[in-house]
Amino acid sequence: MTKQAKSIEWLDNKLYLLDQTRLPVEVEVEEQTSVEQVWDSIKQLKVRGAPAIGVAGAYGLVVAMRSHADADRATFLAELKTQAAYLDSSRPTAVNLSWALKRAVSAVESSSGTDGRTLFTALTETAEAIHREDIQLCKQIGENGASLITEGMGVLTHCNAGRLATSEYGTATAPMYLAHERGVNFSVYSDESRPLLQGARLTAWELQQAGIDVYTITDNMAAFVMQQGLIDMVIVGTDRVAANGDVANKIGTMGVAILARHFGIPFYVASPFSTIDLATPTGDDIVIEERGEDEVTHFGLRRTAPEGIKVRNPAFDVTPNEFVTAIITDRGIIEPPYDVNLKKTFG
Amino acid sequence: MTKQAKSIEWLDNKLYLLDQTRLPVEVEVEEQTSVEQVWDSIKQLKVRGAPAIGVAGAYGLVVAMRSHADADRATFLAELKTQAAYLDSSRPTAVNLSWALKRAVSAVESSSGTDGRTLFTALTETAEAIHREDIQLCKQIGENGASLITEGMGVLTHCNAGRLATSEYGTATAPMYLAHERGVNFSVYSDESRPLLQGARLTAWELQQAGIDVYTITDNMAAFVMQQGLIDMVIVGTDRVAANGDVANKIGTMGVAILARHFGIPFYVASPFSTIDLATPTGDDIVIEERGEDEVTHFGLRRTAPEGIKVRNPAFDVTPNEFVTAIITDRGIIEPPYDVNLKKTFG
Repeated sequence: MTKQAKSIEWLDNKLYLLDQTRLPVEVEVEEQTSVEQVWDSIKQLKVRGAPAIGVAGAYGLVVAMRSHADADRATFLAELKTQAAYLDSSRPTAVNLSWALKRAVSAVESSSGTDGRTLFTALTETAEAIHREDIQLCKQIGENGASLITEGMGVLTHCNAGRLATSEYGTATAPMYLAHERGVNFSVYSDESRPLLQGARLTAWELQQAGIDVYTITDNMAAFVMQQGLIDMVIVGTDRVAANGDVANKIGTMGVAILARHFGIPFYVASPFSTIDLATPTGDDIVIEERGEDEVTHFGLRRTAPEGIKVRNPAFDVTPNEFVTAIITDRGIIEPPYDVNLKKTFG
Repeated sequence: MTKQAKSIEWLDNKLYLLDQTRLPVEVEVEEQTSVEQVWDSIKQLKVRGAPAIGVAGAYGLVVAMRSHADADRATFLAELKTQAAYLDSSRPTAVNLSWALKRAVSAVESSSGTDGRTLFTALTETAEAIHREDIQLCKQIGENGASLITEGMGVLTHCNAGRLATSEYGTATAPMYLAHERGVNFSVYSDESRPLLQGARLTAWELQQAGIDVYTITDNMAAFVMQQGLIDMVIVGTDRVAANGDVANKIGTMGVAILARHFGIPFYVASPFSTIDLATPTGDDIVIEERGEDEVTHFGLRRTAPEGIKVRNPAFDVTPNEFVTAIITDRGIIEPPYDVNLKKTFG
C-alpha cells in the first residue's frame, strides 16, 4: 500500500477499500472483487463515514454490473435495480448510501444507451463523478480554511472528521491537509475521543500517514495543553449544524469549546453544506443518541468498570453557537450572527 | 468478604489486604501470613495510596515480629530494625511508609519493656494507633464536608481519592460516605479518569460497594452532565496544595474546575493537613510528572494509538486557586483568600 492509504481508491477500474476496523494496528487495503464483498465491507464498517459509504456504494454497483455489460438494456436495468437494493440493505440508516445508489440508477436510466456496455460506461462515469464531487467538496472546505493555519501553530481536534470518513481530505482535517500541502509547519493535538477512540485510532493515524506532526492526548489533557500555550486554534467536524449555529458533534466537543473560550483560543467547526440543517431551529431540537453501556464499562473486550455500575453514554453533545468562532464550509467561512448568515448562504 | 471490603483490615491480630490490582473484576481479600507477603503486596500495588501503604507497613512489621515475641529485648530490637529496613525497601519513594515504620520502631525502643512479649505489644499498639489516626483524619474531613451534600444532589468527582487509598473514608469520598451514613440520598458521577482509569476501576467500585448511587462517565462527558443540570457540586482530592491555594491533582482536574465555573457549580478540594504544603508558594513551583507513553497509546495491553505516534502524558495538572470554592480539611473548611487563610490554620 502507499503511505497515503485512502479510505477508497478506484484504480484501473478496480475498487480498493482500506479496512478501518483494523486501524491503527494493521493497514490492510482490500480489492473488492464482488458485490457481496462490498456489501460486507460496508456492513462491517471496514468503510465508514457517511460520505465514504456513498462513494463505496456507487462503485459497488459498478463491481456488481461488470459481468452484465453484455446484457440488453432492459435486462441491464432490471439487474441494476436488484443490485442497488441489495447494496442499500447493507446499512439502512446511512442516508448518503441510498442517495448515491439512487443517483447512479437514475443516471443510467436517463442514458440513451441501448446496450449494456454503454449503460455500464454511464454507470461507471456516475460513480466516478460522485467520488470526484466528494473530494471536491472536502477540498473546498480545505481551501477556505487552510489560510487560518499559519506557521508554528498548534491545532487541537476531537474525534475523526478526517479523510477516512470521506474519500479524501475530510472536513475538520481538510484545512490541515491543504496547509500541509502548502508547506506550512504546524502541530496537531488529537483527543483520543473516548469511548470509541476515533481520535487515537483514526485521526492520529491518518495525520501521521500524511506526515503532519501529531500528538495523541487523552480527552482530559485538552485543558492542560491549552494552559501550556500549545494550542492556537481548535477545528472539529459536526454531525448537524442547527439554523442558529448550535453544533452537534461527538461527545466531548462542547467541553473543548468552553475550555477554548476560557483560554481565548478560536474554535472552528468544519461542515459541508449538506450538514447544515436550516430545518432544525436550535440545538434543543437535536435529539442526543444515548448508546450502549458496554462502550463505557469496557475497553475493547476488557471490563474497566464494575459489574452492574450505572453509566451515561451520550454519543454527542451540542455546543451553543456563542462558543463557535466561525463555521468553515465549502461555500466559505460563515461568521456570527449565524441565524442570519447561515440562511443567507444556505437558505 | 464483606460487601464493604476495606483496603486494610486488622481482625483478631490478623492482617487482611484487598488486592486492588484485580478490581473491579475480582474482589480478593488476602490474609497476610508473612512479612515477605506484605512486602510483595506493597511492591505489586495490591495496596496503594500513600496513607494506606503506611498503615500496611506498620502492620507488616507486627506480622514480621510475631515469631520473635519470645526473644530478649536486645534481640527483638535488632530484628525489628532489620525487618523495618526490609519493608521500607518495597517502595522506596512512598514517604508515608518510611514515616510509619520509623514511628513504630522508635515507639518500641522508647518502651521500657525488657522482654519480647511486652515490646511486641507496644509494636502492635503503635500499628493500631497509626491505623486509627488515619481513619480519624479522613473521618474528620468527612465530618467537615458532609453537610455540603444535601438531599437529591449530584456530585461529580475525578480519579480516586477514596477509601481504597486510605484505611477508610478516603479524602474526596469522606464527605460522601458520611452524608450516606446520615441517610442523605445523592448521586455521584465518577469520571473514568484516563489514562489509568482510577475513577472507573476504583472510585465507582468503592462507592457502589457502599450502596451510594454512582454513575461512571468518560472524562469528556463531564461538560454534558453539567449542562444537563445533573451536577450540583464537584469534590476532588489533591496531591499537593500550594500556599496560595493552587491545587495539584490528577490530570483532568483543571478542566473539570473550569467547566464547573462556567456552569456555576461549586468546586471543592478535600485535603488532609499533611497535603497542604506552605513551603510551595504557588502552583508554578510544582513540577508536573510526565509519565510513559504506553499509558496513552495502550489500553491495558491493547494498542489503541498508532505505532510511533507522539504523545503527551502529564500525570497531574494544577488548578488555579481562583477556581477553588473551598478546601475541605480535617481542621475545617478553608475559604479564600487562601494565601491568608491557609497560613492561619496550617502555618
